[in-house]
Amino acid sequence: MNLEKGILNKDKRAAARLITMMESNDPEAIRIISKLYSHTGKAKVIGITGPPGAGKSTLTDKLAKRLRQENKTVGIIAVDPTSPFTGGSILGDRVRMTDLYTDPGVFIRSMGTRGHLGGLSKATLGAVKVLDIYGFDYIFIETVGVGQSEVDIVKAADSVLLVMVPGLGDDIQAIKAGIMEIGDVFAVNKADREGANRTQVEIEMMLEYNHSQWKPPVTQVVALHNKGIDDLYDNIIKHLNYLETTGQLIEKRQQNSELEIIDLIQRDLMERLVGNEEKRTTISEMARMVANRQLDPYTVSDNLVKKIIANDNF
Amino acid sequence: MNLEKGILNKDKRAAARLITMMESNDPEAIRIISKLYSHTGKAKVIGITGPPGAGKSTLTDKLAKRLRQENKTVGIIAVDPTSPFTGGSILGDRVRMTDLYTDPGVFIRSMGTRGHLGGLSKATLGAVKVLDIYGFDYIFIETVGVGQSEVDIVKAADSVLLVMVPGLGDDIQAIKAGIMEIGDVFAVNKADREGANRTQVEIEMMLEYNHSQWKPPVTQVVALHNKGIDDLYDNIIKHLNYLETTGQLIEKRQQNSELEIIDLIQRDLMERLVGNEEKRTTISEMARMVANRQLDPYTVSDNLVKKIIANDNF
Repeated sequence: MNLEKGILNKDKRAAARLITMMESNDPEAIRIISKLYSHTGKAKVIGITGPPGAGKSTLTDKLAKRLRQENKTVGIIAVDPTSPFTGGSILGDRVRMTDLYTDPGVFIRSMGTRGHLGGLSKATLGAVKVLDIYGFDYIFIETVGVGQSEVDIVKAADSVLLVMVPGLGDDIQAIKAGIMEIGDVFAVNKADREGANRTQVEIEMMLEYNHSQWKPPVTQVVALHNKGIDDLYDNIIKHLNYLETTGQLIEKRQQNSELEIIDLIQRDLMERLVGNEEKRTTISEMARMVANRQLDPYTVSDNLVKKIIANDNF
Repeated sequence: MNLEKGILNKDKRAAARLITMMESNDPEAIRIISKLYSHTGKAKVIGITGPPGAGKSTLTDKLAKRLRQENKTVGIIAVDPTSPFTGGSILGDRVRMTDLYTDPGVFIRSMGTRGHLGGLSKATLGAVKVLDIYGFDYIFIETVGVGQSEVDIVKAADSVLLVMVPGLGDDIQAIKAGIMEIGDVFAVNKADREGANRTQVEIEMMLEYNHSQWKPPVTQVVALHNKGIDDLYDNIIKHLNYLETTGQLIEKRQQNSELEIIDLIQRDLMERLVGNEEKRTTISEMARMVANRQLDPYTVSDNLVKKIIANDNF
């Protein structure tokens, strides 16, 4: 299969193959995406995140269907935790509704969070580019919203939907609070549960500290019963229009590109550091001395950095 | 206050001050820890993690009390998500039992997860060293166990206690599975709830894929009612003894030091990259061209890395 022609001719197998190649950091995939990069930038990218159990998958599916009613095509990237034993993603497609799969205007892909060097973000951002080149009108990136993944999602998305839910415990509340700042649009899902109004008020109170021009709207929804989806959809579109009319969309994309470039540089430097047998041996020997308290890690790091950086200007 | 003398004389204020300085990446704290690094290595470091809502804080407190019965001193570092609005840690000490605070043999410190460059791990590992220099027999690092923090905890701990809980949703199960491999000892907390036996069996089934010599024991506990704590304590001590008698403790610490050195180098390189105004401007300009699809991020990154790395051998 000619992947370059395939992706330009809207062949979903080519898209799937390129994403798989990005997952294994295949240079050929990077070469193809680089070459076709001028085809990107047309899709609107929406990040969907929130605490575990908030019902993000169901809500994503309903929003995708809402977009299909407008005849828009949708690519969905679902980022799942990776099993250390099987190496595959755990939730996989198990919890997703199946009827979207047979819709030719929809593409769904689960990606694992494999790779401790932050493989998530390079592969995920690569997948977004693949779906953008393919020509999807909207791309959803859905993550279990805890930890570094929220930060990563911000790097890729034009607009971030934060999905909250009433009545979770302290830890969850804390996680929730830790990601509040990245939400452009908020949903309180499972709003037929007790405490939905209180959750909405809590979110709105936290957002009072936010002094930007855009006031993130908070919508109560019951994704499972398709309640409130129209309102939420309207708010997402409103935010995207706001970004475009104020010129903030290109600004945001520039910031995202900056974060991506920094991430790529960091990753490349690390690969040079730990991917090289000889260097790895030097570090191991130093580590042995650190473990034996003959050296301290700060001094070791300082000395190695000085050796790596010969030219501090670029 | 002379911090160097203070920490060697078991002054808790000196410990607290040094940890605060590590949180703000103060070079003076690093200088002091480097200088006193030969005093580290005596404490046993135990990582405690698990999904949100598993009752980690309560369990940590009970284990600390159990160690106090043996006349051992305990330092506790509780890593909480940071509020983007207040900048402070959210859970803070709010949910912790108070009577440990008045125990002179116990030190409790909450640390936020601030810093997108992974400030967590440098500050947390620094805090562990501070408490080790101080002379605590045991150091607990407790984290809300989701995302990168589990990986970071492994970098610092001799032994990792994974706290599970019966009857959580799909997302939680997935997160749980994503961190299974890092557990040396398992607790099923809130074991008076329905499904505790099933959870135990599930964990044991997953552990069958683990072919290392040490078989992680799974203990049912009800931390709130102090049930099962003795058994869990015995299993933790058993694992620490196992590490020592097999020579794996020093091996593990060497691996941890290696990860720490790599993390420090990575952090230093990134600070040079994004902390320098001129370089940051270069990257911004490139990012603008990427956002306008004149350049692709992969080519930009490649070119910048070549300029940074002048000497590829060390």
